[in-house]
Amino acid sequence: MTTIDAARRDLVLANRILANEGILDAFGHVSIRHPDHADRFIMAWARAPELIEEADLLEFELDGTKLTRSDRVQYLERFIHGALYESRPDVMAACHNHTLSILPFSVSKSVRLRPLIHTAAVLGGEVPVWDIADEFGSETNMLVINMQQGRSLARSVGPGRLALMRGHGSVVVGNDVPSVVSACINMDKNAKVQIQALQLGDFIPLAPGEINRPWVAPSGPPLPDRAWELLVRRAGF
Amino acid sequence: MTTIDAARRDLVLANRILANEGILDAFGHVSIRHPDHADRFIMAWARAPELIEEADLLEFELDGTKLTRSDRVQYLERFIHGALYESRPDVMAACHNHTLSILPFSVSKSVRLRPLIHTAAVLGGEVPVWDIADEFGSETNMLVINMQQGRSLARSVGPGRLALMRGHGSVVVGNDVPSVVSACINMDKNAKVQIQALQLGDFIPLAPGEINRPWVAPSGPPLPDRAWELLVRRAGF
Amino acid sequence: MTTIDAARRDLVLANRILANEGILDAFGHVSIRHPDHADRFIMAWARAPELIEEADLLEFELDGTKLTRSDRVQYLERFIHGALYESRPDVMAACHNHTLSILPFSVSKSVRLRPLIHTAAVLGGEVPVWDIADEFGSETNMLVINMQQGRSLARSVGPGRLALMRGHGSVVVGNDVPSVVSACINMDKNAKVQIQALQLGDFIPLAPGEINRPWVAPSGPPLPDRAWELLVRRAGF
Amino acid sequence: MTTIDAARRDLVLANRILANEGILDAFGHVSIRHPDHADRFIMAWARAPELIEEADLLEFELDGTKLTRSDRVQYLERFIHGALYESRPDVMAACHNHTLSILPFSVSKSVRLRPLIHTAAVLGGEVPVWDIADEFGSETNMLVINMQQGRSLARSVGPGRLALMRGHGSVVVGNDVPSVVSACINMDKNAKVQIQALQLGDFIPLAPGEINRPWVAPSGPPLPDRAWELLVRRAGF
Repeated sequence: MTTIDAARRDLVLANRILANEGILDAFGHVSIRHPDHADRFIMAWARAPELIEEADLLEFELDGTKLTRSDRVQYLERFIHGALYESRPDVMAACHNHTLSILPFSVSKSVRLRPLIHTAAVLGGEVPVWDIADEFGSETNMLVINMQQGRSLARSVGPGRLALMRGHGSVVVGNDVPSVVSACINMDKNAKVQIQALQLGDFIPLAPGEINRPWVAPSGPPLPDRAWELLVRRAGF
Repeated sequence: MTTIDAARRDLVLANRILANEGILDAFGHVSIRHPDHADRFIMAWARAPELIEEADLLEFELDGTKLTRSDRVQYLERFIHGALYESRPDVMAACHNHTLSILPFSVSKSVRLRPLIHTAAVLGGEVPVWDIADEFGSETNMLVINMQQGRSLARSVGPGRLALMRGHGSVVVGNDVPSVVSACINMDKNAKVQIQALQLGDFIPLAPGEINRPWVAPSGPPLPDRAWELLVRRAGF
Repeated sequence: MTTIDAARRDLVLANRILANEGILDAFGHVSIRHPDHADRFIMAWARAPELIEEADLLEFELDGTKLTRSDRVQYLERFIHGALYESRPDVMAACHNHTLSILPFSVSKSVRLRPLIHTAAVLGGEVPVWDIADEFGSETNMLVINMQQGRSLARSVGPGRLALMRGHGSVVVGNDVPSVVSACINMDKNAKVQIQALQLGDFIPLAPGEINRPWVAPSGPPLPDRAWELLVRRAGF
Repeated sequence: MTTIDAARRDLVLANRILANEGILDAFGHVSIRHPDHADRFIMAWARAPELIEEADLLEFELDGTKLTRSDRVQYLERFIHGALYESRPDVMAACHNHTLSILPFSVSKSVRLRPLIHTAAVLGGEVPVWDIADEFGSETNMLVINMQQGRSLARSVGPGRLALMRGHGSVVVGNDVPSVVSACINMDKNAKVQIQALQLGDFIPLAPGEINRPWVAPSGPPLPDRAWELLVRRAGF
């Protein structure tokens, strides 16, 4: 397979895996930066991730302009992806999701999502929450529908791997598809554990040295083969 | 397909989808207003939604009188639907369910279900709770078994999209089948998020301007194609 | 079908349904009183309910003596069933389960399971908890392994439909198989709702008049056809 | 079947069952002591448990040295297993898992996992938590990657059946494969019940005499046939 074919294949797998593992519902999306053209990204037309096939993929400029000739509806929120690729040359893949487990942390006035299990070191510390109302007021439909909003969100992510979006979901980035898939799954797992740990009282989070160990910095390792093999099989491939 | 055929098909799909997504158990039901006769509604005989096919559908007058010749048992609570169609000319579809996630909110003395995730703007604000005991006393079997009770419930719904029923479930309305399906799914998701958010302490609900944005008022948009396509496929069609 | 054949068929279905619905794990069991011999009951040899077929059924005297010639291992706790049939002539079916949702209530020092949703009126009020240690001390293996212990448990059930067993599970009775299946499912549902309702603060339980409405007394109605049809289909029959 | 063939078969089943029951994710592992050579153990190469077949099994010395000629990647944490077999001649099987339900207890500063349901008597009392930082500092990747760390963990297990690992998971041992599988499943069940019981307030744990009843000491009984038969069938064998 050529690089672009392999990348497109991985993108389809990421859609199907994340849907199958309960991270993506009908409305989330995953993208990759074009492996041969750093100023383009690839994502599906506005279809549910669980159903996406290679023929559904379109190419876009970083400002969200569609390059592929197609009359398919585009994801309204493709600007999330474009702005992240624009601001972070190291980012090669991105996922926007509405995973149930993180939503309570996205609206909490007092508690931040933070890594407490070893596979979630990738969270990097307290996870920032981007509130669209801070810059764009309280009359939006809460969707990221232009580059200005996308860039605001990208500033919240900063040099990290993810940000929560208040009352909406999260965005997760990485330097390849498996690392984004892995980060999404471990973000979800950590959120489920943290909310239960809080019910028991005080807990011990990961120490800074446990978070910043070399093999998860700066954008984390690829998902080890053994998980990727399993996830692909579970998704029916 | 004629309008009525398409409507009947959608109604079957709604039954199967809502059962498949865990919103409807053996006892919930969905109905539509007859597309050609505003003074009639269509719903199945008293069968579990997961099993309903087009041959199971019956027509009723708004007061619950059966129009279709059939000796099948009728849903005892068909008056819920009739009263809603009677009071709200804009309502074209309705669902009565006992979704687990909303039941705690239906019995709580202090907390109301309210929208905190963007896909649940359709809830419209604090969701009213109808308590059958308020008007009909504490000796009922808690079922809505006549028009008087149905109309009382419809008053609780008012101009909104839904009401909870104390210790029982909810009723959700919309201007077509997909919008009712979508509202049920997002009501369920919001309830799950809210109960967890409360465990973290204070949370930020949707702002009034985020709730009342045009595309969800007055009875919400149809479920976008991408969700409907997925839901239909997941239900085995 | 003769009465006994139909009864045996129902008993197999109850095993498979309750396993399929997550009420019975590998170790629970269901029994029926023999329809033609009130002094006998029928239950499987000590096999997991999910796997039980008609050939697995054995007959017992009410004191737990096996009547069927078979060298299959017997359920150690068959005395639970015998004692209930002995003490309650109206009881025609019984289930012993370890449903996860009720176990917290079985060990709580302060909170009792009680009906707050309308389908759980069958619980009848605060559900008694039988603690084996009260009569038999703290050196047991917590199993009901003789008639003396079975009779003690039956006294806790009294004239009601169920009792929890501390740190162990519950026993549920009824006047036929579908009513026991229904009661188990609604006990489970009520437990899940109650634990969440408590997280919201005070809640409104069913009123006495809502609990004692005629159609659930004394041992509850048969599960309506529409649920039974669904449950049977979901279990693969 | 010879002893070794039967043992290898059981090990494959344990991998598949524990994955199927939700105890093992992509990264956990199970091992057995070699039935004919007490100074060796058997486990798969670094593959996800859900996918393991007999051809995936390798033999190791107790210090983690691979004996089988193979260029497959080894589990980095095989030292967990070696150290347990080294320190406990009675241990014939071991499982390292990251079961979600126990992770909150692994990081809690105030609450220990402890047996409150009868099938979890095997926990033996308050379950010890091993914190890798106590002996090895806060700059590790939290994995057990050498014998020194493995032996430290084995000291936490002591003469018991299990220990939690802070922010990571647990290790469970037994004198045969079914008893380890059973202990894992009941550890998970107890954790789920305990966290809910705590929400209700004070609870009654198992009494010492209920924990130490003969048939669970010292390393517990084999999983009764009826559960093993079910688990094997559910895993597709």
